[in-house]
Amino acid sequence: MSKRHKNKGELAIIQYLQKRFPKRRREVLKGIGDDAVVFRDGYVVSTDSFFEKTHFHLGYFSFFALGYHTMAASLSDLAAMGAAPISALISLCVSKNIGMKAIREVYDGFEEVTRKHKCDISGGDIVNCQSFGMTITVIGRTKKPLLRSGAAPGNYLYVTNFLGLAEVGRMVLKAKAPRNEYPDAIKKHLYPEPRINEGLSLRKFATSCIDISDGLSTDAYHLAEESGVKIVIDAEHIPIHPEVGRLCGVVMKDPTQFILSSGEDFELLFTASRLPAERSMRVFRIGRIMKGKGLYLSVRGKLQRIEPSGYEH
Amino acid sequence: MSKRHKNKGELAIIQYLQKRFPKRRREVLKGIGDDAVVFRDGYVVSTDSFFEKTHFHLGYFSFFALGYHTMAASLSDLAAMGAAPISALISLCVSKNIGMKAIREVYDGFEEVTRKHKCDISGGDIVNCQSFGMTITVIGRTKKPLLRSGAAPGNYLYVTNFLGLAEVGRMVLKAKAPRNEYPDAIKKHLYPEPRINEGLSLRKFATSCIDISDGLSTDAYHLAEESGVKIVIDAEHIPIHPEVGRLCGVVMKDPTQFILSSGEDFELLFTASRLPAERSMRVFRIGRIMKGKGLYLSVRGKLQRIEPSGYEH
Repeated sequence: MSKRHKNKGELAIIQYLQKRFPKRRREVLKGIGDDAVVFRDGYVVSTDSFFEKTHFHLGYFSFFALGYHTMAASLSDLAAMGAAPISALISLCVSKNIGMKAIREVYDGFEEVTRKHKCDISGGDIVNCQSFGMTITVIGRTKKPLLRSGAAPGNYLYVTNFLGLAEVGRMVLKAKAPRNEYPDAIKKHLYPEPRINEGLSLRKFATSCIDISDGLSTDAYHLAEESGVKIVIDAEHIPIHPEVGRLCGVVMKDPTQFILSSGEDFELLFTASRLPAERSMRVFRIGRIMKGKGLYLSVRGKLQRIEPSGYEH
Repeated sequence: MSKRHKNKGELAIIQYLQKRFPKRRREVLKGIGDDAVVFRDGYVVSTDSFFEKTHFHLGYFSFFALGYHTMAASLSDLAAMGAAPISALISLCVSKNIGMKAIREVYDGFEEVTRKHKCDISGGDIVNCQSFGMTITVIGRTKKPLLRSGAAPGNYLYVTNFLGLAEVGRMVLKAKAPRNEYPDAIKKHLYPEPRINEGLSLRKFATSCIDISDGLSTDAYHLAEESGVKIVIDAEHIPIHPEVGRLCGVVMKDPTQFILSSGEDFELLFTASRLPAERSMRVFRIGRIMKGKGLYLSVRGKLQRIEPSGYEH
């Protein structure tokens, strides 16, 4: 059950469901509460819904970009579990204003991502509906699932790339700000990359993992909660991409605060005791894991307790 | 990819997708075109969407019945493949008029069905949306999948129960006809039973199988097409439930024609060379499989070619 794009009412429902439906079947290793359901023999299944006006606006999403974005966001849940994608099932809800050409372009976008990650599109459903949207179910497999619950005191906190870029892109596209000044941010919002290969590599040394869907503070908070540890993020170590710095200057926001609450980067946030000497992926070390509880920000040596402040609609 | 409730435009899209996305991954045994995706090691996954006004009307569906009906319809795809359910993921699209009490009741309905069939509810998604509806993904497992493609000349055609009852129930509820005269039909429409146990038994002797979602003619046509055979349905052998007979009398329709085009019974339609002597399930033999192509109705010894006439919105 993804917590992406959730308001408080929806989060309350998820908590209610998590209590109400504990896992019963022996085949289910991990049920409600992680990025995906994990089955005992390594299958991983996740489902996400995206609807117009709630999750995307056709004002600046082409149909192709929409297919790309939603499939990438869905596969990101598999990346976070360290799973290799096998197959996607798409249930498309088509409203009256959506014609065959648009549907083909959405599928072009889906296919661009699935082909890159050797994932089949194996079916789904197509229905008429008042809202335009889709529910994507992705199925993958892993020899060893990366869970949210393995972070241990003494570990460090890492992230696979700059954060906040996707939110900058969204703001620029929405406000019709000068697009040529924010090429990386716009690309990141429209065409995010699920970190599948990184997730597969992380299985060898990460102790816990989550994808950045709701923002650093919310997602780090999930790791702290599920692992029963305290996480300290070092403000000075959060890397600031020039475009994030530029936009924060324009809107007069502190870049660190901006990054803490900016979602949809779909980078992987993970913990490990140390990184292997040989690795092909870029990572930034941005914090440490300690005994205790909760999420803290260290600013010039002083600890501030921070609350999750995810990206809410 | 389910073909339930499809109009011609939607069927054209499914055919387009089936051509465009052939299965590529070795792990996928059967992709778009059957009741569910089948993986090589026996996992079976299916996804179905249900939206207000397209698939159900809250005028006569209680929230509990809605949860029951949609979960039963979803699990029916597993029954048709001879798979035992393990887990369901539900993506609920909640419109403004749907409160927490309604959501709880929908989940009560889901749970009533999943508990009966020992299926976990393992997650999903909850999103705000202009339309109220849900996409249900069900995951099951089978040692030997029942496909649509194994019917052979010399086999007989069987069905697990009376047909047409669900459509009678729908008509009675919609027209506000006297409900006390149609108890079985109303129950069948609101609370259909997925034939999970029957599907599991059928793995031992059925050569092909499908669930009745679009009506006898459309679903039998799928078996004929996918198996490359001719199917002859014996009009005299189609069992007529008294409530189907009664309603057909009222609306002056021929019961056989009515049954051919009435969907959503979720009974299993299957072929076999013979039935085992010992079996616990009720079945009716309603036709035979021959060399050739297409679907025929035998009425007093005369063959009429029939076209699929599924239940279309």
